[in-house]
Amino acid sequence: MTILDRFAAGDRVALAKVISFVEDRRDGYDGVLARIFSGGKSAYRVGLTGPPGAGKSSLVNRLAGLLAGQGLRVGIIAVDPTSPFSGGALLGDRVRMQALYGRPNIFIRSMATRGSSGGLAASTKDVCVVLEGFGFDVILVETVGVGQIELDVASVCDSVVVVFVPESGDSIQAMKSGLMEIADVFCLNKSDRPGADRIKAELESILDVQRQIRSSALRGSPPPWETPIVPTVAIRDKGVTELWEAVSRHRQFRSQGDPAGLRLARTRSDLVLSLTELAHDQLEKTLFDSDHLNRAVEQIVSGQADPYSTARRLFESWRRGQVRN
Amino acid sequence: MTILDRFAAGDRVALAKVISFVEDRRDGYDGVLARIFSGGKSAYRVGLTGPPGAGKSSLVNRLAGLLAGQGLRVGIIAVDPTSPFSGGALLGDRVRMQALYGRPNIFIRSMATRGSSGGLAASTKDVCVVLEGFGFDVILVETVGVGQIELDVASVCDSVVVVFVPESGDSIQAMKSGLMEIADVFCLNKSDRPGADRIKAELESILDVQRQIRSSALRGSPPPWETPIVPTVAIRDKGVTELWEAVSRHRQFRSQGDPAGLRLARTRSDLVLSLTELAHDQLEKTLFDSDHLNRAVEQIVSGQADPYSTARRLFESWRRGQVRN
Repeated sequence: MTILDRFAAGDRVALAKVISFVEDRRDGYDGVLARIFSGGKSAYRVGLTGPPGAGKSSLVNRLAGLLAGQGLRVGIIAVDPTSPFSGGALLGDRVRMQALYGRPNIFIRSMATRGSSGGLAASTKDVCVVLEGFGFDVILVETVGVGQIELDVASVCDSVVVVFVPESGDSIQAMKSGLMEIADVFCLNKSDRPGADRIKAELESILDVQRQIRSSALRGSPPPWETPIVPTVAIRDKGVTELWEAVSRHRQFRSQGDPAGLRLARTRSDLVLSLTELAHDQLEKTLFDSDHLNRAVEQIVSGQADPYSTARRLFESWRRGQVRN
Repeated sequence: MTILDRFAAGDRVALAKVISFVEDRRDGYDGVLARIFSGGKSAYRVGLTGPPGAGKSSLVNRLAGLLAGQGLRVGIIAVDPTSPFSGGALLGDRVRMQALYGRPNIFIRSMATRGSSGGLAASTKDVCVVLEGFGFDVILVETVGVGQIELDVASVCDSVVVVFVPESGDSIQAMKSGLMEIADVFCLNKSDRPGADRIKAELESILDVQRQIRSSALRGSPPPWETPIVPTVAIRDKGVTELWEAVSRHRQFRSQGDPAGLRLARTRSDLVLSLTELAHDQLEKTLFDSDHLNRAVEQIVSGQADPYSTARRLFESWRRGQVRN
């Protein structure tokens, strides 16, 4: 039996091998993905992001347990950005999550970042496709929020939960920028700690302002999604059911009236990611290492050309297929 | 007089306007860059990165003062990743840096991230080109270290200083991954605080191991650069001269024997960045919004095609110019 046969037969070791093959971008990985692509079936992808120490892994742990208890098959992708400053806390989380490894309906996979954050989004998306092909119903994608990466990874998910804690107080203002836009559900974890009420009120007032701006802009349109704030205490399993209910409501909201539309949007955004990665790979293979580029660099250094006109000229030649390596 | 005439005449308001034009990627920005491109002249670009609170802005402040005192013209680019969790500390730093605004040989510019980190690297590179065209001798690029961004921005610089503090103890292990590779000089700031000796010793032992691995791999080759660790106390102006000496030694090391080689390497890496951005823009304009893409998405959703073969086919059509919007 080949690996793909064993994959199709539900062998988890084969699943892990296929994921590595795809994640490492080995030769022919996209052929493998094309064969695995499940067509009709697709899992609901939920992203969880937030600052280090917000308890994301515990939440994912609890959510996975809840869903598995309902008979659902849950795939977990834990994205570890190789942030030079994030420290070793992640490792402890992973160890705790290993408790889930043994359960038949739960599969957990860590992914390390490499290359650009765009590349990470593309490979996360492909690992989702592998998990979908294997038959998972829900995929939880956990990312530590350290800059650009969580925004890119969020683009791969259908619903995004932004996790914060009472201690995040000072960052609420900063959160307005990037995270308010990607959050479909806010989760206030460790909500039994001092300061929880204050930070919840603060966030609510920000959401209120947002809502007013939106509603005046969208007058007459159907009401937009109202981002809920769900308090949880993950380590004591409090609020986890409510969190999943909020995600489910968002899922329903998204597919409301047009379940096919959701599928189209997801397919389009996955395809755009694949195309971006292809373009990048092709440039690298055929242009960046070519004599054309070498000559262009020499012309710029010798003052015969400027880099911007040169870039445009090179790019056009490359597109016309006049650059071959 | 046009803006570019005023730019050429040394008008700092025109400089600021040109930077905005380029940073915002307005129509024709690359034509402006082509005209500004200084050919022969190019500034030495020094990146400074490290965790929030390491005192990078104070260091940049001191370095700029030191260099301006030597009659050099110094451009500063402060990159603020819109990290959703980084909080408001950056603002305070910026305010402190404003003290430099008034000095004629120093120009400071904040850049906010937007889009992908790759896009940030490309626009940082272009702002460097503008500053070089204006006649700056040294460019200091400050980035807060929050993941991928500092790695991308580092690729735009000739020497990279990684700043850490005694409190970074726990991250030293994690730093091994990404930062060890980009650091040309380590700066241990706030080195008068407890724990400084211990963390310096730790880092030295890591560097030692690295050196041994390298020297056995490179037997017979010329000795590689030995990354120094420079202790500083930026707010009391201690060690800043030594830090700059370390950077200057690295600069000399890089151009040793082959000053033209340094220029070639920089030109090549700038050109590759421009080409990557061009490809991305062109895909977005001509393919992502086209009927071709719409039809492909429908075929995938209806099960007539898989996304991976479709991506490859679409990409090839696009390269052959068969996709027009």
